[in-house]
This record gives sequence, structure tokens and C-alpha cells, in this order.
Amino acid sequence: MESKSESSEWGSGVWAHLTTVRQRSPLVQCITNFVSMDLVANTLLSAGASPAMVHSVVEIPDFTPHIHALCVNVGTLTPDWLPSMKSAAELASKLGKPWVLDPAAVSCSGFRLKSCLELVELKPTVIKGNGSEIIALSSASPGQTRVQYMGADSSHESTDAIEAAKSLAFSSGAIVAVSGAVDIVTDGKRVIGVHNGTKMMQKITATGCSLAGLIAAFLAVDQLQPLEATVSAMSVFGIAGELGEAMSKGPASLRMHLIDSLYGLDETMVLSRVNITRLG
Amino acid sequence: MESKSESSEWGSGVWAHLTTVRQRSPLVQCITNFVSMDLVANTLLSAGASPAMVHSVVEIPDFTPHIHALCVNVGTLTPDWLPSMKSAAELASKLGKPWVLDPAAVSCSGFRLKSCLELVELKPTVIKGNGSEIIALSSASPGQTRVQYMGADSSHESTDAIEAAKSLAFSSGAIVAVSGAVDIVTDGKRVIGVHNGTKMMQKITATGCSLAGLIAAFLAVDQLQPLEATVSAMSVFGIAGELGEAMSKGPASLRMHLIDSLYGLDETMVLSRVNITRLG
Amino acid sequence: MESKSESSEWGSGVWAHLTTVRQRSPLVQCITNFVSMDLVANTLLSAGASPAMVHSVVEIPDFTPHIHALCVNVGTLTPDWLPSMKSAAELASKLGKPWVLDPAAVSCSGFRLKSCLELVELKPTVIKGNGSEIIALSSASPGQTRVQYMGADSSHESTDAIEAAKSLAFSSGAIVAVSGAVDIVTDGKRVIGVHNGTKMMQKITATGCSLAGLIAAFLAVDQLQPLEATVSAMSVFGIAGELGEAMSKGPASLRMHLIDSLYGLDETMVLSRVNITRLG
Repeated sequence: MESKSESSEWGSGVWAHLTTVRQRSPLVQCITNFVSMDLVANTLLSAGASPAMVHSVVEIPDFTPHIHALCVNVGTLTPDWLPSMKSAAELASKLGKPWVLDPAAVSCSGFRLKSCLELVELKPTVIKGNGSEIIALSSASPGQTRVQYMGADSSHESTDAIEAAKSLAFSSGAIVAVSGAVDIVTDGKRVIGVHNGTKMMQKITATGCSLAGLIAAFLAVDQLQPLEATVSAMSVFGIAGELGEAMSKGPASLRMHLIDSLYGLDETMVLSRVNITRLG
Repeated sequence: MESKSESSEWGSGVWAHLTTVRQRSPLVQCITNFVSMDLVANTLLSAGASPAMVHSVVEIPDFTPHIHALCVNVGTLTPDWLPSMKSAAELASKLGKPWVLDPAAVSCSGFRLKSCLELVELKPTVIKGNGSEIIALSSASPGQTRVQYMGADSSHESTDAIEAAKSLAFSSGAIVAVSGAVDIVTDGKRVIGVHNGTKMMQKITATGCSLAGLIAAFLAVDQLQPLEATVSAMSVFGIAGELGEAMSKGPASLRMHLIDSLYGLDETMVLSRVNITRLG
Repeated sequence: MESKSESSEWGSGVWAHLTTVRQRSPLVQCITNFVSMDLVANTLLSAGASPAMVHSVVEIPDFTPHIHALCVNVGTLTPDWLPSMKSAAELASKLGKPWVLDPAAVSCSGFRLKSCLELVELKPTVIKGNGSEIIALSSASPGQTRVQYMGADSSHESTDAIEAAKSLAFSSGAIVAVSGAVDIVTDGKRVIGVHNGTKMMQKITATGCSLAGLIAAFLAVDQLQPLEATVSAMSVFGIAGELGEAMSKGPASLRMHLIDSLYGLDETMVLSRVNITRLG
């Protein structure tokens, strides 16, 4: 009952955020990995936002001032992409535009960890990762880039990462979001759990990247409440996944129905499914 | 009635073009953006063409002489890609092979606008964009690259771009195609309207890029009539979208059914749905 | 009858390989072309493996020692990618990790052919191509890179490539796999035919690349029997395609159902459909 009451309080906010994204169609610049570009763009389009996959360093001074939010994802990082990411992040921060850092597979190399730490210094509004990524990023410090090497999949539950997330939020000033069976969102003090979504979403590549893009779109329409906007985006994406899975026979049909569901979400679906609780 | 009669005249040509693409399976080189590569390739395959995503500048002297058409799309342009685009375009023009320029998001930076103007100088057979892109490209001139910055989505109706399209066709010598609620095709004198397609196709990333690839395939089988080939490609793609949408619940299922429909199009479907009129 | 008996002997091995991939979830590094990254990753995920699209040369010394197998595909090769491919391949070979070379469209340029020949020197465990690719690679030698230029689609039947495949296997020491109406796998002596799969799979871009990734995952769990692991991966992918096609209306729905089917394959489906014979 407590939980239901909490969720119904959150529910109207989630729906309001989605509605506003659909109305305003924020322009979201995505500097993301090659694997995810298609799904990130389609996720943003189906949510009502306007994606722009602009990553050339020479275009950033012209283009980034016109965006409403930025998403940076290091999933297929090479050294030549880092200047674009930094340049866009710096400009976004300077101009007061929200931006999301997705430290995808941050532990796969010292180079990637170092790059992510440098990006954290540029003051992302939100850092979104899975449990392993947030733990790796939180426990590292600018001078220390020795890591447990691993791939893109998480070997930790999101709930194992709560302390790491709080610590990273505290040190970075960012909202930290941890995707998993329960999504965790924290500003370093409050800890919110988003219980929407389904396990099979992890069997589709780039769902995490797409969620990061969606968070950016939600931040764009509620800059003053980045924690609430992040929670809303995670809940909306999870609900679309739940509705999608009910129609699916496997990961590829889930991918399709997830996007269709996100496009078609109405108030009743959202309010009846929002499952958000305060965890700390 | 007038319109029906016009369409039935066009209809047999549309069907003949599609049939010829399926028979000859033209080899279409695509130097396109990262977001669209998958959908462009699948669009071409489902239409019966043979796509080749070859973009390395070192491969062009060997490969481009063997293609039947080229498609260049600047959607994720970086300076290191421009030499490939120019080299392939120059070689295609020199060897009398048709090529399509898709000035995707041309207004997002001065660099991109300047690059597109340089590509226009290399004599594309067709320039295909949305209303905003064609207006931006048409109103710019080599010495003037100040633009209204914007993203990939059009803020103009295609019909607002008719004069700009005619002017660009006149100055460039290219057929100009403007995608939108009504697709516009002009050689600077004649203006044809293609009324096929559905609004939801704009909610799928890379449909515009895929259309550009399809136009290249159609040009490959009817070099002498580039306006007619372009009109046919736009009508076929639109009809596939209409058939697809009837089976769809949102943008992702439309994307699937669009490709399936393009693959399965038969003469009856084409002839009964072609909707083409002369607008000027 | 002979054939049925042969297949039932193979069947239990195919099922055992798939089960082991699902249990161990091998980490498969993919340095693949831009067109295929999405489908390769989703294929590996749906088979139970863990894909990692890590291609930066600076990350290889940190990351590659932790993988279980590597897949290198030259489909959108540019000179700046070659050092990564070579570096990962060398390290994999040195550390005794299996790796697959997919010489996609090897004939499209002298540069690509030369690059593939250099990669062959680095001792791939398996070389997987279509008939035209294997013939081109087999007939070339390090000093001779003049080729019949062509695109990504095969103009040869896989069975036309048997002698070329045996010769390439003999000269390279690799297992050679030729995809086609009948998939051919040879170690230079034995020649196995895999009769699973459907023709329409060729109408989906990146199915060949995805198969190469899947072979890498199967090699990861049976390093001592690379020929058998390759045969199993080809049969599993073909069976998923057969099951998928039964539900499909065209290439795009086949793409979806193929992945869903791969995810959902059970022992009965595998054993009843495995169609493998010794051809020589």
C-alpha cells in the first residue's frame, strides 16, 4: 500500500514528463557508439524527441548551441572521438544544457576508464550505467585506472551498486542512474528504485544506450528536477518493455514491440504500471 | 479523374522500373551515415538491388568503376569522409554513372553546408532532401554558408520548398526531390507530386536515407529518364509504407512491414496505389 | 537413410555446442563492419554469448586477453582499422584464443584483398566467406592481388568453391567455411555440407557477418574441435532461419524471427532439423 501510494505520486510526474517530451520534441544530440545509433535514434523518435547523431568535432561549435540536451556514450570509443565528446560536453555545461554520460563498458581498458573520468570532470547532469560500470567508475579516481577488465554485460546487480552510486553522485555532482533488475537513481542523498522493465531487455543490444538517450530527452524538459526526470525516463522505458514483452516471442520481437509501445503509451498504461519506490 | 488518369499513365512506368531493378540487381555503392547503413542496405536488398557499403577512399579507384549507381549521404559527416565522397562522386560523374546526393541535416553546421555545396558542384544526378534541407541548400551559395541551424527533422512542408527545388535544379542541373507529406520531384521545369507514403515513416530513422539509396537503384536502370526513375522510386517506397502501415502498431513494426512490403510488391498493389500528379 | 543417420550423429553435437554457449556465455570480441554491428551483437546475445564491439587499437592490449574468441570482418575496411584487426588477431593467436576471419567483399579492391591476405597470415582458426569470397581469397597469393572486382553478394554457388576452400584450408591451416545454399566446411581433408538455412537469409544484410560471430562463440566453447564447432554454428543459424522463415512475410520479419528463434531453440527443434552430411 505504501508502495502503491508512492508510485501513484510518481505516476503523474512520469506522465507529465512524457507528455512534455511529446509536445516540445527536444533536440537531443547523441555522440554514441556505432552499435547503438539506430536504436537510440528510433527510441528518441518514438518518444517524441528529435535525435541528432552529430559527432564531428568541427560541427559542435555550430550545432551544440541549438540542442536541448546531449548524450555521450563511450561504447565504441577510439581516441579520435574523445575531443568531440569533450567539446560537446564542455559546451553543453557552459550553456546550461543537460547532458548524460553513459560509461559503456568503462572497464574494458585503461584508456576507456581514463576517458570516462575526464568526462566526469566535465560535469554531466546524469551518469547512467549498469552495476559493474558504476562500481568501476566510482571506485576509480583520476590517478588510478587499474581495473577489473570486463565486457559490456554487468556482473553485478544494480542494488549492489547503491553505495558506489551514492559515492559517485557525491563526488561528481551528477545524478547517478544504475540500470538493472531494479533501476537505481540517486543524487547522493535520496535513493529511488524503479521496478519497471523486464529481464529480456538485456538480451537486446543498445537498450542501455537508448535509455541514456531517453534520459537526455527527459532532462531537456525538466532541467530543474534532474533526478525526477531520470526516474521518469527509466520508468517509461521499463513500462514500454513490459508492454512489449507481453507481445514478444524473443529479444528481436521485444525490440520491435518496445519501440511501438513507447510510441503508443497512454496515460492509463503509464499510471497503472509505474512502479517507483524510495529505497533510501 | 484527371488525377487517376495521370496516375495510371505513371503506374506502368513505376512497375516497369521496379521490375527492371529486380531483374538486373544493380550494384549500388552507398557512402552513407552510420545510423542508416543497416536500413539502406536492407531496403536495397528487399527491392532486388545489390548494396555495397564501400567508403574507403583507397578502395574507390578499384571499386567505383564497377558500380551501377552511387548514393552519398552526409548524415554523420566528418572531415575524413569528405575525400571519399568527392572521389566517388567525381569518378561516377566521369564514368557516366548516376549518383544521388542526400544533404542530410545540411544546416547543422557551416562545415556540412560547405561540404554539400562542394558535392553539388560534382554534378549529382539527383539531390534528395526534406523541405528544410532543400531550402537551405538552394538559398546558400558557395561563398555564403550562414544558415539557420537545425537538426535532421524538417521544419518545412515539402510543398513550401517547390520554388527552392526548382531553383536548385536549375542552378545545379540535378533532378531535385523533396520528401514530405507530398513528395516533390522537379527538373527545374516540370514539377511532379508523389502522394504515396504515410506520416509515420518520419518516425523511423533512416527512411529518408533509404529512399535516397532506392532512387540510386532506380536511376541505375533508367539513366536516360532520371526524373521518371526518381518519381518511381519515391512512389514505390511510399506504397510499401502504406501497405506496411496497415499492418503496423507503431514505428518499429512499420519499419519491418515496410521492408517486407517492398520485397513483396506485385503489379496489382503498385498499379492500384500509385498516386502521382503533375503540379507544375 | 544414410543422410539421416549421419545427421543424427551430428545432431547431439550441435545441441551440446549450443547448450555450452548458453551456459558459459563466452565473451566474443567483434571487430566488424558498421553495417553489421547491430545484428552481430543481437545474434550473439540471442545465442547466449556476450558480444563486445571493441575495435580501438589502444584498447586491445587491455581487453583482448580477457576474451574467449575474436571475430574480424573487413566489410567496411579503411586503412585505420587494419592495425586493430591485426593487433587483436596476433594477440588472440599468441594467447591461444580462437578467431574467425570474415573476408567480406574481399574482391572489391586490391587494398582489401591485400589486407585479407595479411590477416590470413595471422592464422585464423576459421575463415568464413561466401563462394565468391573464398574463391577470390584462395586463388590470390601474397604477391598477387589482381582480382575480379565485385560487391558483397556471391556470384558463385558454395559448392563451386569446394576445391578453393580445401586449397585455402591447406595453405592457411584454417578451417574454411563457405556459406550458401549448402554451407561447406572443410579442414582441407574432410568436407562437410550443412543443408540448413533458407534462401531468403541472403536478402538480409549482415546475416553472413552474424554467422561469423556465432562461429566465434562456438569455437570458444570447443577449441579442440574447430571443424565440428563451425559446423554446429552454421547448422544452428540455419535452423533458426528455417524456423524464422515459417513465420515470416519477407526479409525484415525473417530477420526478427531468426533472432527470436535462435533465442528459443530447444533440443527437439535442433535434433529434428539438423541436416549435415559428409561430402568428401
